[in-house]
Amino acid sequence: MSGGNISGARGIPQADQGKIASNPPAVTRILPRTIQRQALVDVALGRIPADVVIKGGTLVDVCARRLVSDCDVAVHGKRIALTGDASHTIGHETRVIDAKGMYLVPGFVDAHYHIESSRLSPRRHAQLTLPMGTTALFEGSHEICNALGLEGIAYMLEEGRDLPQKIYVVLPSATPPTPYETSGGFIGGDEAAKALTWDRVVGIGEVMDYARLFNRGERLWQVIQAGLEAGKVVEGHGAPSSPRADAWLDAGISSTHFAGAGDIALGLLQRGVFLELKVRGSRDAIKKLLEMEIDWQMVGMCVDDRSVHLLSELGHMNHEVRLAIETGLHPLIAYQLATINNARHWRLEHEIGVIAPGRCADILFISNLEGVEIDRVMADGQIVAANGRLVVDIPILPAPSYVRNSIRLPKSITANNFEMRVSSERVEVEAVVLRPFYFSADLGPITETLSVEDGVVQRDLEREISKAAIVDRHGRSIGVSFWKVGYKEGAIAMSILHDSHDISVIGATDGEMAFAVNRVIEIGGGIAVVRDDKALAEISLPIGGLMSDRPHDEVIEDLRRIDEEAATLCPGSLLGEDPVNTQTFMFLTCYPRRIVLTDQGLMDVETGEKIPAVT
Amino acid sequence: MSGGNISGARGIPQADQGKIASNPPAVTRILPRTIQRQALVDVALGRIPADVVIKGGTLVDVCARRLVSDCDVAVHGKRIALTGDASHTIGHETRVIDAKGMYLVPGFVDAHYHIESSRLSPRRHAQLTLPMGTTALFEGSHEICNALGLEGIAYMLEEGRDLPQKIYVVLPSATPPTPYETSGGFIGGDEAAKALTWDRVVGIGEVMDYARLFNRGERLWQVIQAGLEAGKVVEGHGAPSSPRADAWLDAGISSTHFAGAGDIALGLLQRGVFLELKVRGSRDAIKKLLEMEIDWQMVGMCVDDRSVHLLSELGHMNHEVRLAIETGLHPLIAYQLATINNARHWRLEHEIGVIAPGRCADILFISNLEGVEIDRVMADGQIVAANGRLVVDIPILPAPSYVRNSIRLPKSITANNFEMRVSSERVEVEAVVLRPFYFSADLGPITETLSVEDGVVQRDLEREISKAAIVDRHGRSIGVSFWKVGYKEGAIAMSILHDSHDISVIGATDGEMAFAVNRVIEIGGGIAVVRDDKALAEISLPIGGLMSDRPHDEVIEDLRRIDEEAATLCPGSLLGEDPVNTQTFMFLTCYPRRIVLTDQGLMDVETGEKIPAVT
Repeated sequence: MSGGNISGARGIPQADQGKIASNPPAVTRILPRTIQRQALVDVALGRIPADVVIKGGTLVDVCARRLVSDCDVAVHGKRIALTGDASHTIGHETRVIDAKGMYLVPGFVDAHYHIESSRLSPRRHAQLTLPMGTTALFEGSHEICNALGLEGIAYMLEEGRDLPQKIYVVLPSATPPTPYETSGGFIGGDEAAKALTWDRVVGIGEVMDYARLFNRGERLWQVIQAGLEAGKVVEGHGAPSSPRADAWLDAGISSTHFAGAGDIALGLLQRGVFLELKVRGSRDAIKKLLEMEIDWQMVGMCVDDRSVHLLSELGHMNHEVRLAIETGLHPLIAYQLATINNARHWRLEHEIGVIAPGRCADILFISNLEGVEIDRVMADGQIVAANGRLVVDIPILPAPSYVRNSIRLPKSITANNFEMRVSSERVEVEAVVLRPFYFSADLGPITETLSVEDGVVQRDLEREISKAAIVDRHGRSIGVSFWKVGYKEGAIAMSILHDSHDISVIGATDGEMAFAVNRVIEIGGGIAVVRDDKALAEISLPIGGLMSDRPHDEVIEDLRRIDEEAATLCPGSLLGEDPVNTQTFMFLTCYPRRIVLTDQGLMDVETGEKIPAVT
Repeated sequence: MSGGNISGARGIPQADQGKIASNPPAVTRILPRTIQRQALVDVALGRIPADVVIKGGTLVDVCARRLVSDCDVAVHGKRIALTGDASHTIGHETRVIDAKGMYLVPGFVDAHYHIESSRLSPRRHAQLTLPMGTTALFEGSHEICNALGLEGIAYMLEEGRDLPQKIYVVLPSATPPTPYETSGGFIGGDEAAKALTWDRVVGIGEVMDYARLFNRGERLWQVIQAGLEAGKVVEGHGAPSSPRADAWLDAGISSTHFAGAGDIALGLLQRGVFLELKVRGSRDAIKKLLEMEIDWQMVGMCVDDRSVHLLSELGHMNHEVRLAIETGLHPLIAYQLATINNARHWRLEHEIGVIAPGRCADILFISNLEGVEIDRVMADGQIVAANGRLVVDIPILPAPSYVRNSIRLPKSITANNFEMRVSSERVEVEAVVLRPFYFSADLGPITETLSVEDGVVQRDLEREISKAAIVDRHGRSIGVSFWKVGYKEGAIAMSILHDSHDISVIGATDGEMAFAVNRVIEIGGGIAVVRDDKALAEISLPIGGLMSDRPHDEVIEDLRRIDEEAATLCPGSLLGEDPVNTQTFMFLTCYPRRIVLTDQGLMDVETGEKIPAVT
């Protein structure tokens, strides 16, 4: 009656009868995760019961930044179906959790992190940090990639599969860190473009090779381009000031992990940089930003690097939030920095960082908001921790052989590899003698006079001048030079070497250096402290030469013994209070360093010039 | 000297010597836009001069939300190379622009917009709105897509190519709006997945078909899934309250364009919804949100729909910002809502919405911040407008034939097409008589008694009961029913019909209805006001039947004449002050409407039930 048909028009598909061809491409099949979302709809509308309803808590609304009292949360599977009044979602089988007296806060999201620096495998790390409230993290991954290339990414993703702590992988821009070092893996434009199509690979991490950035280094620019073309975030590294900051950002960089002064923070914010604050190193900056009454939407928080014993002692993001509140940040803002702000930066606020419908059910039950006292942790819809203890089983997967076999030298290292020979007539030479954290861009190289015996340049342990070397983890090259670091006896070798993760060694004699390196190789990567021909302490870190999948307390104990034994070798004062840890960072080649030691020898990484170790 | 080689290890590519195969895939070629970024680096570092340096302005830092006085901006090509002290970037050829006394604000970004509603083609629209400061907009595109499908997207992108006003396209979720209407285009999962790979296609727009959303409508869920799988934003429509809001968000929805009450706004914000405020309809909400002292990071601004004469009269985003400030919002927050907040929502803050290195050089010179007085507009590095007038040539491209030929009926419409016949014995019937903006979900259908003469159901113009019809734009079907709208004489037909954009017609006689529809077809789409067999006023909108590429003042004049002539036909009071415009919106089928007229007839869009027009 109402409406006649006119013949003759071309046919088009009948709307909503579907348009699925007989072999539909994957994207137009309804995927399991879409079906899960459809079930959430059913829960919200009261058609099927929720799995869990959390009742009576005070929701911390990190979007509007306010508290919503007596706000239920209905959970189905791994996600939140509804917030507000959830009475109609409760069925016979629904588990009702009483949250009276509790604040419900989104699980913490770490904006910039390196699991490898904990020395724990991702799943061991999750066992330790889930009870601290970290339910998602952005894994920098350039440690594992410098060891293993894309296979390292595959390993991280595989470890993260079905893990209640979400591991999002940020591809490294610095693999290798500079063209003047040989790392185990290589990430160029091809590799980046490929990995950026993988689930949970979310961007390009910490662009740090300023020299290549400012001089059109092909590999680095290709990697950045791959990130931007994929619509992903490109993250920077460091906190340069104008005009270097501008040049760096011109490449398309959106953020940096930050520890520094307030004025620099303001200058970067003004230039559109999302600041991933390392709170411990940014307390003065926070005070300054508070004083300036800034908007905090472009500020987040991160831990960056933290070893297992510090995690165990201080905590993870919970510690950063507590510190930020102690520094004067309003508690609700501090929680925003640790949740929604980080999620928004990485463009994942529809997944994490907010307690809201459709999001992952990652919820902290906090009894004291200012003190960040976490009573329970829900992740993926499950209570995973209570009173600081894990209450679910997180099985440890056997690490695949491709990550266990990451150090492959064709033959043993000998003392000769570290010998520094000159003409046998000479009695002394001028040697480059670097120091840890010596930013030679500012100071220029420092040389010292060293004596020569039978054509061999000698250490001067009295003046703390020892020798260090970098051995490529596949034995293709070795770089040697003198360093003002000690030790007076023995040697320490390790396959943790930011950021190339070749093997570094410092030693009082060439023989002990060789012995220490060979021990590291024999234990499949790790750290060895030796004296004469004896290993005083060691730890095997067989996963990429960086991580262990043993329980965290065993790893802490091994590391404690290593520190103890290393102290007996009388390391130089320049190595600081934590000399073994200092060794992991002292060979960094990124900005603001310029004259560095790599497996290629002493290099000026800005010009690419090779520098003689002695003249 | 420093470092020997050990033979035998496997070969890997030499780092940074590039890893380009002989036929590199596109992504690892250095693309022109990367080369442009490399030039920005050169400008920032003082190696090559900037094209333009803006000196002495006060930068509105929308990130930290503060003013930075005397802040230069160096521009190269279409982008910003540096902010701060730009002295070293000024060369002989650099154009220095004095901005003393001016605030430098990022170009306005409209978060949710339909160019089609202006009745102007994108480039004509840009000519009008660039001087108002809108340098980027997110084009909802479901008008052009319901007319033309993906070809409509292609047209929008083509119009936007090299246009200083950036047009980002949001794919329509509502093409067709419901399964119970026939539109010219179809966007399913396949089409969405394909278009999401195109440059400047940034998400899925306004999910509005709640019935299909809540009942697993295959096409709609496929489109949403395509958006989420591509890592793009999925936008909602409307402002439902819990639990419908929760169910709607469970699908993965991130935002909605909003006009409504403060409590609803708070409820949506709390559920993680980014609010694209339509300021004119949200002043009470703004007051409420101010009272609640909310964080504004999850709030933006949009214009949504605005016809050319209102644009000309009120303005565009500049008007919204002014209104927001008048309503009590701090001016700096108001500018954030119109710039960075919208850009962040759409994940484009590295491109637009901030005056910072690497971003598009879209900069407003504003002499009075509170009054939003725009002195000059820079877009893509060029001053495009001064004192409200365009100062560059924006050429009008000939619209391609595929958009000019969007209405294709095989033969003319006749009066019989609109006749409503019943058994010739009957003297009266009960007829469904709808009204504009009649939300039948709440009220249920309304029927009235109408008389029958010789088997033909009669209008009752005394009671304002007239007849309306929807004619599929390719003539496949016609839906007819009675409506309480007038007119007392003549008929009005138009090919603007939210959201299917078929042809609607309202008329006092069936003959005039047919004449009006045939006029619309003859002029290639548009609006026709007729009396007897005479066209009183008409406008051709040949681009998709929706837009004109004539100068805006000519379009305004034609529309003014149409309104004038339509008034002489004595439209019913329910059509309001702007009856022709009301007609474009009165056949909407989306939430919260339920009983609607489409080309398929009267439908209950929630159940899919067909409703007899008369019984």
